[in-house]
Amino acid sequence: RRPGIIANPNCTAAILLMALKPLHDAAGLTRVIVSSYQASSGAGAEGMAELEAQLQGWAKGRKVPAKVFAHPLAFNLIPHIDSFKDNGYTGEELKVAQETRKILELPGLPVTATCVRVPVLRAHSESVYVETSRHISAEKARKAFAAFPGLQVIDDPRLKRYPMPRDQAGKDDCAVGRIREDLHTPNALNFWVVGDQLRKGAALNAVQIAEKLL
Amino acid sequence: RRPGIIANPNCTAAILLMALKPLHDAAGLTRVIVSSYQASSGAGAEGMAELEAQLQGWAKGRKVPAKVFAHPLAFNLIPHIDSFKDNGYTGEELKVAQETRKILELPGLPVTATCVRVPVLRAHSESVYVETSRHISAEKARKAFAAFPGLQVIDDPRLKRYPMPRDQAGKDDCAVGRIREDLHTPNALNFWVVGDQLRKGAALNAVQIAEKLL
Repeated sequence: RRPGIIANPNCTAAILLMALKPLHDAAGLTRVIVSSYQASSGAGAEGMAELEAQLQGWAKGRKVPAKVFAHPLAFNLIPHIDSFKDNGYTGEELKVAQETRKILELPGLPVTATCVRVPVLRAHSESVYVETSRHISAEKARKAFAAFPGLQVIDDPRLKRYPMPRDQAGKDDCAVGRIREDLHTPNALNFWVVGDQLRKGAALNAVQIAEKLL
Repeated sequence: RRPGIIANPNCTAAILLMALKPLHDAAGLTRVIVSSYQASSGAGAEGMAELEAQLQGWAKGRKVPAKVFAHPLAFNLIPHIDSFKDNGYTGEELKVAQETRKILELPGLPVTATCVRVPVLRAHSESVYVETSRHISAEKARKAFAAFPGLQVIDDPRLKRYPMPRDQAGKDDCAVGRIREDLHTPNALNFWVVGDQLRKGAALNAVQIAEKLL
């Protein structure tokens, strides 16, 4: 037995990776650009409580100041998660890129992230653009996603079915939808992935790592 | 005098263009990938009222169903604005692309959009990735943005200053921030632009067009 620490990845990276891994296996990733829509619970129970208190306050006509977040989150968006680095990126944005490369074992993969806090209680969402080395149709990508354990495909826009944080909160599986081929770049896809970052992004993933070890 | 109709552009495209035009003049745009964070007021006064009613209902422990939007917007994100087309894109996503190309007079410019409704009352936000034909540093881009009428640069992350919908609501000017060079692609920038889509995205722009004509 080797002593050591096993790290659980960043929650935004973990949810992103649930969609990237089957796509990489199917078509070979060459580039990832992601914009996140991260829930208040990413900052812990206090983050959720602050958003709820601000909205309760708004309903009753009084202001509740921001303490957990840098600014009020109610009816707002905060493009600032973790601390800022000299290159203008946040720690969160760099973590998403670095951990994605590390876990996929693709040290040269270009990954660009913009991370934004949104007034949602639970479940992170991500708008993702990828390029692949081999062409993959939206239909084949849908099949690759559907075959991956822990990932559901919810992608029937005509029936107004697509992943939403409200539906994914409290669920173990992540969900991917809005899967569509890019209209300009031949080997490129766009999609939308949502996952409960307290489950797949944190607790569930730690349990799954432990199960794998035992 | 020539009779005719003058169209006001799509609000998400109008706000995006406020940042793209100075960048194109400075460095030549070759590619745009945008993810939007669109306020409830994009669906009119009823959209704002529905979000407020849902949050008032939540504060009082009763559910207010969705009528204006396809799903409840309170504490949620809806990756569905306008109707879906056969290629999987929404009308809004195609409009952002088409109108951007038309207004910049760049019919071949690749523009990819993902449009998402967020629980914000007023002001649309956009996470934007661009590639340019000539290299432009973040510092030079900041100067080009700052010199463009109607666009403010709010980009001092260490002081927690960046554009947010809460601050831009009710303002004529759009604001751009989080301006940073891409870490992988040489001639690429990422930024975040926010504007009140009822003003620059609609009423103000119509008035500005009329002023130009008179």
